[in-house]
Amino acid sequence: MKGRAMAAEMAEQPAVLERLVQRRAAIAAEVRQVVPHPLCGITLVARGSSDNAALYGRYILEMAARRPAGLSAPSIHTLYRSPVDMDGYLAVAISQSGRTPEVGTVLGRLREQGARTVAIVNGTGSPLAEAAEVTIHLDAGAEVAVPATKTFTATLLALGLIAPALGEVAWSDAEIAALPGQVAGLLSDRAPAERLAARMDDGERVLVTGRGMLLAAALETALKIRETTGILAEGISPADLRHGPIAAVAPGFPVLSFLSGEADDLDASELTDTLRQRGARVQVISSERGADCPLPAGVPPGLLPILAVIRGQQVAATLARRRGLDPDAPAGLSKVTLTR
Amino acid sequence: MKGRAMAAEMAEQPAVLERLVQRRAAIAAEVRQVVPHPLCGITLVARGSSDNAALYGRYILEMAARRPAGLSAPSIHTLYRSPVDMDGYLAVAISQSGRTPEVGTVLGRLREQGARTVAIVNGTGSPLAEAAEVTIHLDAGAEVAVPATKTFTATLLALGLIAPALGEVAWSDAEIAALPGQVAGLLSDRAPAERLAARMDDGERVLVTGRGMLLAAALETALKIRETTGILAEGISPADLRHGPIAAVAPGFPVLSFLSGEADDLDASELTDTLRQRGARVQVISSERGADCPLPAGVPPGLLPILAVIRGQQVAATLARRRGLDPDAPAGLSKVTLTR
Repeated sequence: MKGRAMAAEMAEQPAVLERLVQRRAAIAAEVRQVVPHPLCGITLVARGSSDNAALYGRYILEMAARRPAGLSAPSIHTLYRSPVDMDGYLAVAISQSGRTPEVGTVLGRLREQGARTVAIVNGTGSPLAEAAEVTIHLDAGAEVAVPATKTFTATLLALGLIAPALGEVAWSDAEIAALPGQVAGLLSDRAPAERLAARMDDGERVLVTGRGMLLAAALETALKIRETTGILAEGISPADLRHGPIAAVAPGFPVLSFLSGEADDLDASELTDTLRQRGARVQVISSERGADCPLPAGVPPGLLPILAVIRGQQVAATLARRRGLDPDAPAGLSKVTLTR
Repeated sequence: MKGRAMAAEMAEQPAVLERLVQRRAAIAAEVRQVVPHPLCGITLVARGSSDNAALYGRYILEMAARRPAGLSAPSIHTLYRSPVDMDGYLAVAISQSGRTPEVGTVLGRLREQGARTVAIVNGTGSPLAEAAEVTIHLDAGAEVAVPATKTFTATLLALGLIAPALGEVAWSDAEIAALPGQVAGLLSDRAPAERLAARMDDGERVLVTGRGMLLAAALETALKIRETTGILAEGISPADLRHGPIAAVAPGFPVLSFLSGEADDLDASELTDTLRQRGARVQVISSERGADCPLPAGVPPGLLPILAVIRGQQVAATLARRRGLDPDAPAGLSKVTLTR
């Protein structure tokens, strides 16, 4: 069956996330031991799909630490070989395979220059794990399908479990414990994503929007759609969309819009209205009533992106199936990125 | 004449840059007074087109300060309203108009929370200038064309002139003084960009690649092409291109590749070879001999992006002219971005 691996790996997510949730106290305690005091900042090291996870991590870690977090620029170390004093920094590297060579190289370089280091990897014995002082193994099992699913949501959750080591988080213990069950609930409720995919099946382009942490879900959903179908899907923030590409949104243009449902998210929901006035076919993934594809209500904003990503996976997998494509092995993609 | 404003503003660049270069000692001295000691890090605040300038600034400032620099996430302040301790940080805000409300709001918020603040603006009396302790006026004159040209290159140069306030820079005083003349030289040499544009005129998509600081030039060139022609131009790093979208590069696909000409830039030049093997029509903008569109040789890597952007402007303006479009006023774009 086409897409069997991706479907099986998506279905494993509640169990994978539950195992991580069970380890939450140990993960926070281990990371706490390497957090510098005073803390200057946090830097995330990632490539490709992990970049979308790093964007989420950047919010979650900055908001918990109340100190700036950002994404490292690997070229500073690998191309310009410029020295950077990393004293007072926590560096968190992400690589689902643990074998993207550049990520390990950069983390090693940051450590030499004074950063304390954490790696998030799936699988053991990876070079990245060796470069870090603390390694968080996702324990997600082998991932065979090219589009990462369970390792991606597990990475997001791992970042969320690091956050309490840096400061106060905006969710309760009960809320994090409820997450795997909510993921299972979404996975067993496939009809909304299938309906949504059916309505956007005829185009070769789609915009996926999300603001703040939901931009990570939008970028990841766009990547999954590109990987599984070849549709030119682009993730973009409402502000950047309004600044330029909105001019290219013609009547009938499909847009997927992740909304937080928060009262403060007026910017994103106003953009949705503007897009509809332009004749775009906007479909909303949100916990708001009347969403085309619902998310559970009452989930803290910091955990919502994990559930949003599940909806994005369902949309991407459905689109591929509708087109007779095999989402497990898109042409031209391989699982490990090699860069120098 | 279509594109008259853009052409005139492009032609003003040597004079605008020369005026900034003349002020280099004063700019560095003024910024030096607000740089925190010890310095934890640098954060750049920008939106839209200025984001591409911030990406360049992030390299230039991190490499001079030898402390991490990164781009701020406005949503942390405007959507989540999460407090972040900015003690020890220099915040540099960029807005060509000085009126993008979110940029001023975020800079004000960072200052309240302990950051020292610099604003780069064009024009006086802007709200952003009021939010900052030090304001660098670009003094570029009014910019009428929607695609920013002279304010963009002036912003890059202003970032370069801030860098000496943070530490040692990798160019000499003579090299920075030579820059406006090199820009004038490129602007008077229009044939290479016109030839290059003629060879990519038939497509509706183009990829623009660049590594490290040249990614800023690639993203800006892609933006100019989108703004002036509506062609779906996408700027991307070689590593990210290789990881995924390369699968979509079919024979004949046009690719613009900015290469540094440095021996270390093997990754980018190997990618160019790979793309050519796939049948892509790759055109190279570089200081290497044999480039389709030459850049001057011997320019320090930190200043090369400014010259690369000039070539990108020429390509975008030529493409628009060839299609009978008016690059001054693309449909649906306005000059100030409003976001909350």
